[in-house]
Amino acid sequence: MWNKNDIKFMKKALHLAQKMEGKTSPDPMVGAVIVKNGKIISHGYHEEQNTPHAEAWAIKKAAKQAKGSTLYVNLEPCCFFETKNNPPCTKAIIKAGIKKVVVAMQDPNPQVNGKGFEELKKAGIKVNKGLLTKEAKKLNEVFIKYITTGLPFVILKTAMSLDGKIATKTGESFWITGEESRKRSHKIRNTVDAIIIGIGTIIKDDPELTVRNIKNKIKNPKKIILDPLAKIDVDRKVLRIEPEKTIVIVSNNAKENKIAKIESTGAKVIRATTKNGSFEMKKIIKTLGKMGIISVLIEGGGNTNAKALSAGIVDKIYFFVAPKIIGGKEAITPIEGEGITQLLKAIKIKNLSIEKSGEDFLFSGYLC
Amino acid sequence: MWNKNDIKFMKKALHLAQKMEGKTSPDPMVGAVIVKNGKIISHGYHEEQNTPHAEAWAIKKAAKQAKGSTLYVNLEPCCFFETKNNPPCTKAIIKAGIKKVVVAMQDPNPQVNGKGFEELKKAGIKVNKGLLTKEAKKLNEVFIKYITTGLPFVILKTAMSLDGKIATKTGESFWITGEESRKRSHKIRNTVDAIIIGIGTIIKDDPELTVRNIKNKIKNPKKIILDPLAKIDVDRKVLRIEPEKTIVIVSNNAKENKIAKIESTGAKVIRATTKNGSFEMKKIIKTLGKMGIISVLIEGGGNTNAKALSAGIVDKIYFFVAPKIIGGKEAITPIEGEGITQLLKAIKIKNLSIEKSGEDFLFSGYLC
Repeated sequence: MWNKNDIKFMKKALHLAQKMEGKTSPDPMVGAVIVKNGKIISHGYHEEQNTPHAEAWAIKKAAKQAKGSTLYVNLEPCCFFETKNNPPCTKAIIKAGIKKVVVAMQDPNPQVNGKGFEELKKAGIKVNKGLLTKEAKKLNEVFIKYITTGLPFVILKTAMSLDGKIATKTGESFWITGEESRKRSHKIRNTVDAIIIGIGTIIKDDPELTVRNIKNKIKNPKKIILDPLAKIDVDRKVLRIEPEKTIVIVSNNAKENKIAKIESTGAKVIRATTKNGSFEMKKIIKTLGKMGIISVLIEGGGNTNAKALSAGIVDKIYFFVAPKIIGGKEAITPIEGEGITQLLKAIKIKNLSIEKSGEDFLFSGYLC
Repeated sequence: MWNKNDIKFMKKALHLAQKMEGKTSPDPMVGAVIVKNGKIISHGYHEEQNTPHAEAWAIKKAAKQAKGSTLYVNLEPCCFFETKNNPPCTKAIIKAGIKKVVVAMQDPNPQVNGKGFEELKKAGIKVNKGLLTKEAKKLNEVFIKYITTGLPFVILKTAMSLDGKIATKTGESFWITGEESRKRSHKIRNTVDAIIIGIGTIIKDDPELTVRNIKNKIKNPKKIILDPLAKIDVDRKVLRIEPEKTIVIVSNNAKENKIAKIESTGAKVIRATTKNGSFEMKKIIKTLGKMGIISVLIEGGGNTNAKALSAGIVDKIYFFVAPKIIGGKEAITPIEGEGITQLLKAIKIKNLSIEKSGEDFLFSGYLC
């Protein structure tokens, strides 16, 4: 059904789309390629919210040449008026005289969801869908989760020794993994809207939670601190560096004077309910989704990680593994908490894959 | 220096050698290929102790054709009279009229160690050494360690969840890894002289420690049980199945009547010294070496593993990793004990590599 050129052009569209990973939120990543007589005559990608869509850029650049051409785009063209910068792409495609549209996947956004295809077909445009769908879905896994559930896509990241320790028994954790993996961690941060971390790690490590030491930095993500009793000290880096990007989540037991102190830094404080002394992670995630946060990275200690996993909020995991052994019955492991008792109840990871990361290895996988 | 054919023939020799992995102990694995006019005219491999060497088999099969040929062999030919079945291979090579010998590595056995090469050269035979040396050394890593130190090569094997747990907090560990990995574990057992295990695992799991469910089973290895107080029950499988292959290591605190009971099964009991209540692993390994055991596989729990690692006796590790998460602060990890406090003192693993093992992954690496 698809020829070599189809695949080449769609790969190009996917590649263009990915350029803006981490910047398009809450929009999807989209790339578009316009082809005529077997040659690319123009291309475009969506940069960020409230800027033109990928198709619009490509059509604009192609100008009159677009007539009779084929458009390759990784997501179904939109068919609704989003903002003044984003009129429906379907209209622009029809107006430009494009004769065929090849699409990787339908847009799960309820406002589109096949309606874009219908509109194009009605206008006599040939629509071929389903090319590199798997790749396209993976690329926009964050957007797909968010647009269909209203919940952010949750990534859990940890860095451990080969024997499964994230810190020595005395809490030393700098650095278990090597430089390449730490750089890689910053790249992951660069793609998400927010980082979630527990107060324990804030007290122990005082992290900045910024994106550093990489090329193509897009932004620092928001910082979500789980701090039931509002214990955080205003001297902590997360309250000194871009405090307006920090959200401290406290319980109803947090004292007003402590909350006021946190707010005085410019950070936001949100009260959340607890159950048996622990936050209800599902509710927190829902709140973050309502705030327009479409992806979060959990960089917790063993306890925060365990809570997130047992609450069932995690979509994807990254486990960095360093070629060293720490040992110790009392050393800290990546997932602590209660744990399971019966192996049959172990949390299964699907599509687990591994790659080298400098001297370390990186496992990636999805929750079932 | 080496041409395509050289590499092809030496690979063949290495391949032949490996056929008898686990059977040749305490001898090395050796394969030999005799080539004339660019064609293999005969080959052989060493099967087990007190049977002819690889070169002898190949020369015997080549008969008169050996005259003027080239011999490819992964280990320097021996030059001493081992047993009546094993006269010096150098003599046989010279007598057969072989004109050139290509060798992967020198035999580190002090009785050979270059003397084989000298003898061949003196007889006017061309000796080319150093082809696929790395592969040859890896193949005979067990033999090399043993012949140069008198100590067995020690492999530590464990099977854990992605988050570094070898059992749930209640001790459930069947099965963390999948069928392919369990089969693989039996293959590893098939290559070693002995398995070391702690009394804790014997009490908890009552393992057979036999080689099962694989093709080409060579033998069941010896079973070494670390049991300071001679607590083992005579009903345990290791004392019921081939008890003559079981060695129970006890401390000086073990009671005579308990020892007598163990010995009544046909198993052997050895007393070993302890320090701060723990066995001195280095001494135990030395004892096993003196008994002619050239390789041991530690299949301990987290404690036995930690003791072996901190005693510095481990040469190689195998870590199976299953795509699941167990979690739990109290769950059991692959390396327990005291552990390190400073990350700088972490035990480094070199040449860590990974491969798929069914649905699991298998890390292999060496201690530095």
